[in-house]
Amino acid sequence: MVQRPRGTRDFIPAVMNRRLAFENLLESKAISHGFKRVQTPIFETLDLFTAKSGPGVVKQLYAFQDKSDRDLTLRPELTAPVMRMVSDELRSAPKPLRLSYFGQCFRYEESKKGRYREFFQYGAELIGASGPLAEAEVVALAIEMLESCGLEDYEVRIGHVGVLRDILTGLGLPTQGEGEPPVASAMRFLDKGDWQGLADLFESHGINSSASVQLQTLSELDGGSETLDDARVIVSQLGVSTDSLDELAELLSALGKLAPSPPSLKVNLCVARGLDYYTGMVFEVNVAELGGEGQVLGGGSYRLLHLFGLEDLDPSCGFGLGFDRVLLALESQAERAGRSEVVPGETPAPSTLILPFRIEANAVLHLVKELRDSGHSVELDLRGKNIGKSLDWASKNGFSNVVIIGPQDLENSQCTVKNLQSGDQNVSGLDSTSISQLL
Amino acid sequence: MVQRPRGTRDFIPAVMNRRLAFENLLESKAISHGFKRVQTPIFETLDLFTAKSGPGVVKQLYAFQDKSDRDLTLRPELTAPVMRMVSDELRSAPKPLRLSYFGQCFRYEESKKGRYREFFQYGAELIGASGPLAEAEVVALAIEMLESCGLEDYEVRIGHVGVLRDILTGLGLPTQGEGEPPVASAMRFLDKGDWQGLADLFESHGINSSASVQLQTLSELDGGSETLDDARVIVSQLGVSTDSLDELAELLSALGKLAPSPPSLKVNLCVARGLDYYTGMVFEVNVAELGGEGQVLGGGSYRLLHLFGLEDLDPSCGFGLGFDRVLLALESQAERAGRSEVVPGETPAPSTLILPFRIEANAVLHLVKELRDSGHSVELDLRGKNIGKSLDWASKNGFSNVVIIGPQDLENSQCTVKNLQSGDQNVSGLDSTSISQLL
Repeated sequence: MVQRPRGTRDFIPAVMNRRLAFENLLESKAISHGFKRVQTPIFETLDLFTAKSGPGVVKQLYAFQDKSDRDLTLRPELTAPVMRMVSDELRSAPKPLRLSYFGQCFRYEESKKGRYREFFQYGAELIGASGPLAEAEVVALAIEMLESCGLEDYEVRIGHVGVLRDILTGLGLPTQGEGEPPVASAMRFLDKGDWQGLADLFESHGINSSASVQLQTLSELDGGSETLDDARVIVSQLGVSTDSLDELAELLSALGKLAPSPPSLKVNLCVARGLDYYTGMVFEVNVAELGGEGQVLGGGSYRLLHLFGLEDLDPSCGFGLGFDRVLLALESQAERAGRSEVVPGETPAPSTLILPFRIEANAVLHLVKELRDSGHSVELDLRGKNIGKSLDWASKNGFSNVVIIGPQDLENSQCTVKNLQSGDQNVSGLDSTSISQLL
Repeated sequence: MVQRPRGTRDFIPAVMNRRLAFENLLESKAISHGFKRVQTPIFETLDLFTAKSGPGVVKQLYAFQDKSDRDLTLRPELTAPVMRMVSDELRSAPKPLRLSYFGQCFRYEESKKGRYREFFQYGAELIGASGPLAEAEVVALAIEMLESCGLEDYEVRIGHVGVLRDILTGLGLPTQGEGEPPVASAMRFLDKGDWQGLADLFESHGINSSASVQLQTLSELDGGSETLDDARVIVSQLGVSTDSLDELAELLSALGKLAPSPPSLKVNLCVARGLDYYTGMVFEVNVAELGGEGQVLGGGSYRLLHLFGLEDLDPSCGFGLGFDRVLLALESQAERAGRSEVVPGETPAPSTLILPFRIEANAVLHLVKELRDSGHSVELDLRGKNIGKSLDWASKNGFSNVVIIGPQDLENSQCTVKNLQSGDQNVSGLDSTSISQLL
């Protein structure tokens, strides 16, 4: 028996309608914000991702060799491929560029709810622009997307990697060193909340270890825009300076005008996104009810184009939206609210079954074509069973209407249009215009 | 320098618009014919395709092992995955089922124009229905799809594998044997036009070798429905019988009512499709100007579900449409005709650039949001260069309109809306309703 590969999914029509409706919503928001869809291959050369994320990434990849021993891999994410595409195909296109994308990504990891080996990402990149306005445009698109599909109870957390970096270098911590640079070590301690580790590191570089206590206070700030004021106090007490807090303030102000207010928006200066190619604003969106798989979106300002010799375009700003996880959240929220429609627009258009009964189907095939031509979704019955069974089949298959044509009908140039939702039956002339009015 | 893998492509926005428009056209035709979209994983277990096509298929596959040594492969086509999905997920769904799909497929072969290692297929399967009406519904959908995108000069060839099989078995050629069954050998000779080989095979089974001459005549028939009459004469001369010609006649009659007439529709009883899982009607569509890569669509009635223990649903009927090849043909036809629009609907919606000039962008961000909310595609200028350069950039990027707001404008609550196509400039009130009327 042939099995579906572990960690992958099939999408049957009812599920696919929902996914297509969701994709269309995201696409329409992308278009309204000026982002244009692009597409890259399902597999890339392995070195694209090791260049972006380091060799450690390989153990999570579906890497393979082709028949010429080239090292390839199914793509684990889409930012690096899109940047490679920009470098290959859009090098001379006028910048900034607003690009969007949607597709499968692959990670070899234990599969569970919200974590699949084949998963889908929708994303957007604003390439060759930086600063608070560009960042606000990107975060605004993310929020508009989540609002358009009706997601509730999500939290947006915005930070800026510049704040901690400016503080750490301002305190005198070196950005270079043997092995892991001290600033990177400090970021790691901050990320893990290892305050003793941070204090020890500071001491070994002749920095007063009390600074680590203030950094702990800073990292625990988690609130609205007043957080920026609290942070300014700490920065000033530490005797260092940073522009990043002002940039964040400007971003938040612009965001308030460009996007609806999300259910919760918090400033958190320790949103680090775990990856060191981020250069400015970083943000993520969490849905608490999804638990450990609750991060549904993440992004920020980053530098990647220098990998392709396009230094002058860095930084860019973008995000990836976890298509499957947002859907999971929408499904659980719809279930709690007793809504059957999970994504706006997922309900398919009404459909009609043409049921020739004890007549040659040939006599009514022109109606099938004419109704389709006028925009209806129409199936010709191919079962040729008795009427009761065919109506039962039509109900189970979600048809809205059945058009029944028997021998008497043919003689009288008429037919019966049965509405399967209401149960109403109407006699109609045997022409597509008359039938159309009853569908 | 990281390279895009050989035989794969990137799709930049202008190309992607065309591809999305084409996909939408195909999708709307599928919906109007009652076909519902499904999706399966990008990779499958290797045995799915060896079960369908034999072990010889492996050399053309992107096959690989996962970290648990499972044999997987990127899918080379979509019919087998969809059938596996039906067996896994839709076993108890009421039949017949009309399913459609779209996605990437992968074949390891020399890449050239019209032949890519990553290519795209749109397809439809009518599952659990057989006979001329079901087959006509499937061919009708294929023709509607090609007509909807404006393809010209294509030829549909319809055959029926039953005709030759009935003749060969009627002549007494065994369907079983040591090694290749004699009927299969004969089909192979017919496919290659090896008439001597066929005559020798006949002789070795005690069949008058003159039959091979008549089969040659039959195989060379290639015309309209009159071909069926010519074929009937030959069948009768051979002293054998077949229902398949009547079935083809019935199919053609139904097709005439269900679909527009294609530019060329030929009956050809040697359309064999090269694969022995076909059981009834087979058809293919060719575009001569594409040369060796001219087959843009192919399908027929086939048995695959018995591989999954669902014998009672066989046969099904479907087709795969070569998305890339149809686009190639459309592009070359549009170029010859001097049309810039290749696929109906590919031209993107008008877009507007909001250009704050020597003012704080913050003062006009609410306009950006309001115009987007009312359905416009709007970008905020993020370059902050001088007006001339920004207008130049807007032209190069295909914007329809630019809304310019300077310090005087802010004071007077007005702005200038410049139409980049016509060059017209109009002064508007500084509110989204007024601006909207000029876009």
